[in-house]
Amino acid sequence: MIVDYDAELRRRAGRIRLVLTDCDGVLTDTGVYYSATGEELKRFSVRDGMGTELLRLAGIESGIISGEQSAGLERRAEKLMIRRLFTGIRDKDRLMTDILEQTGLTIDQIAYIGDDINDLQVIRRVGENGLTGAPADAMPEVLDAVHHICVATGGHGAFREFADWILSLRRTAGRTTLGYIDLSTTGKGGEWTERQ
Amino acid sequence: MIVDYDAELRRRAGRIRLVLTDCDGVLTDTGVYYSATGEELKRFSVRDGMGTELLRLAGIESGIISGEQSAGLERRAEKLMIRRLFTGIRDKDRLMTDILEQTGLTIDQIAYIGDDINDLQVIRRVGENGLTGAPADAMPEVLDAVHHICVATGGHGAFREFADWILSLRRTAGRTTLGYIDLSTTGKGGEWTERQ
Amino acid sequence: MIVDYDAELRRRAGRIRLVLTDCDGVLTDTGVYYSATGEELKRFSVRDGMGTELLRLAGIESGIISGEQSAGLERRAEKLMIRRLFTGIRDKDRLMTDILEQTGLTIDQIAYIGDDINDLQVIRRVGENGLTGAPADAMPEVLDAVHHICVATGGHGAFREFADWILSLRRTAGRTTLGYIDLSTTGKGGEWTERQ
Amino acid sequence: MIVDYDAELRRRAGRIRLVLTDCDGVLTDTGVYYSATGEELKRFSVRDGMGTELLRLAGIESGIISGEQSAGLERRAEKLMIRRLFTGIRDKDRLMTDILEQTGLTIDQIAYIGDDINDLQVIRRVGENGLTGAPADAMPEVLDAVHHICVATGGHGAFREFADWILSLRRTAGRTTLGYIDLSTTGKGGEWTERQ
Repeated sequence: MIVDYDAELRRRAGRIRLVLTDCDGVLTDTGVYYSATGEELKRFSVRDGMGTELLRLAGIESGIISGEQSAGLERRAEKLMIRRLFTGIRDKDRLMTDILEQTGLTIDQIAYIGDDINDLQVIRRVGENGLTGAPADAMPEVLDAVHHICVATGGHGAFREFADWILSLRRTAGRTTLGYIDLSTTGKGGEWTERQ
Repeated sequence: MIVDYDAELRRRAGRIRLVLTDCDGVLTDTGVYYSATGEELKRFSVRDGMGTELLRLAGIESGIISGEQSAGLERRAEKLMIRRLFTGIRDKDRLMTDILEQTGLTIDQIAYIGDDINDLQVIRRVGENGLTGAPADAMPEVLDAVHHICVATGGHGAFREFADWILSLRRTAGRTTLGYIDLSTTGKGGEWTERQ
Repeated sequence: MIVDYDAELRRRAGRIRLVLTDCDGVLTDTGVYYSATGEELKRFSVRDGMGTELLRLAGIESGIISGEQSAGLERRAEKLMIRRLFTGIRDKDRLMTDILEQTGLTIDQIAYIGDDINDLQVIRRVGENGLTGAPADAMPEVLDAVHHICVATGGHGAFREFADWILSLRRTAGRTTLGYIDLSTTGKGGEWTERQ
Repeated sequence: MIVDYDAELRRRAGRIRLVLTDCDGVLTDTGVYYSATGEELKRFSVRDGMGTELLRLAGIESGIISGEQSAGLERRAEKLMIRRLFTGIRDKDRLMTDILEQTGLTIDQIAYIGDDINDLQVIRRVGENGLTGAPADAMPEVLDAVHHICVATGGHGAFREFADWILSLRRTAGRTTLGYIDLSTTGKGGEWTERQ
């Protein structure tokens, strides 16, 4: 079977409804700051905030999955108006099953970006029918497993770039295969949907 | 019409009275630090502080425009003796109209430096008759739209470089077109003004 | 005497039971943040946390040695479930003697990663029979003295890379010299042990 | 007059008794962190701490000059056991005169490292008979004015490198011109002194 890889990515992008991201190493540069009195800080990028905003304008939700529980992350999610925040998660793959049940979404409507080996299982699962990405400085095993390797590193716009990449695929899809777009569905959330 | 681009930049530099800057991504490297207890930190550069001081010595004011409200930014502005601070601004273009009214300045007396797509409208408006710049790591759309792309990145001296660039244009203007300088106006704030 | 250097490293890796690391410059990028009110922050990387976890899965303990006493470091060690934390240490070489006595381990079961000249004595002692490493941005004298120079810099995954390097040597040892592995000992902590 | 530049640097290094450093941009990467509640953080490097220790072992004192008053800097100086801390200094050149009076040192016993244009006056004064340096990322005007441009940037070991450079010049001086060393003075603080 001959597959047009780029066309397939555009088709997938057209279906995405929820972009999930790992926290440490994607929204941050893996850094965590500890003070003597027990304060813990994490550094995020406002540029990623613009990414969630652009996705929202296209009718796509954002969600954060994190192995660590962190009040700083909760505050950041609040500020970004991200309703879907899953923390203290050890088994990310099992969580994915829960997310699909709760949201009623199917796996091909999910995009995922992660950076370390504990993201690999989810990346492979989402990668089959959805879209996957990794920051430039992700672990080699992860770089090998994703659709899009960002030029940006974690904490310095990787999520924004992943969002821009998806949105740009959707726009290209619209432009190059205009005859195939199902216009009856574009009202729901504003996103493009394609018939195949 | 043949235009000497460099001469035009020098002419514009001679008119600047107020240098406006975006906060996140220009005065910072887009980073925002969140703690568990709700503390929010931003990192600024003392080198940009020297930039506002050099502008002040040349009779040029500095101002900060920010989409986000941030007490940390307010403290920073205080320290830099920047009186003009506009925070919580969603529509930067409309703000520009207000600023012109309040200050009595015209758009050709304004210089603006920004880094992200929500700066584009202002950059285009100021760019017509004033001067515009962007940090080296600004978004591609912004890099395409400005007069001066800094070698320095956001939070690492981009504003200082933009200030130095304007001041250097003014000095060159003075040196190469000395006969045209209106000496009667140089007393006001110490800046150069050119007749055309 | 002709020695197969890589085979020797694999043999050594097979014996490691405790990986010791310097704090500042290895787990951090040498940075220490001071506030006006006396708060002191240090930045660690979650990627190094994954390193201690991978070592633990292979039955290898991790320990931190630091010349400075720092409550932030203690909190970080806690989070990483690192029981062995030695702070306020001026004479690291003498500490090594104490560690061997307390743990009942021999020097060839130790791996050590450090970055500055006060690590040199320990690096030379461990390096004779154990394994040693340094972050990419360690001091030149240290880079000259270790078995493995990391691609990663301090605070950005150097410890993780050192851990991965040891674990990868152990796996290669297993694969290429399978006939020599003493299977009777692999149950203890899960690590490989080789007979020679 | 033909001068052996390297020999002259070695001669000067042999006389140094006090190494003075600017704070922002040399001991830090120019960054200053502001929180909403008015907390102000600065990031220093433990590697520079080792620099002051190595100087002390060679009988050379360290001192910090800063235009800004900062409690964080005071705490850092304390930790580094630096007794000489001068903050809130606007006119660094005049301060130099005061320092010479207070310490009884002459200008040729001073080394100075700075990064911005407000350091230029002091750099030129010290540079005539003492030794001067700048971090790799100092302002161009400063890079043009100093004896030693560090490979390291501000906040990432520039001071340590400057200290190592001075100490290495002293060692070379001792080795190559041993016959000229005035042994009667080496007891005072342990430094080398040369007769000419």
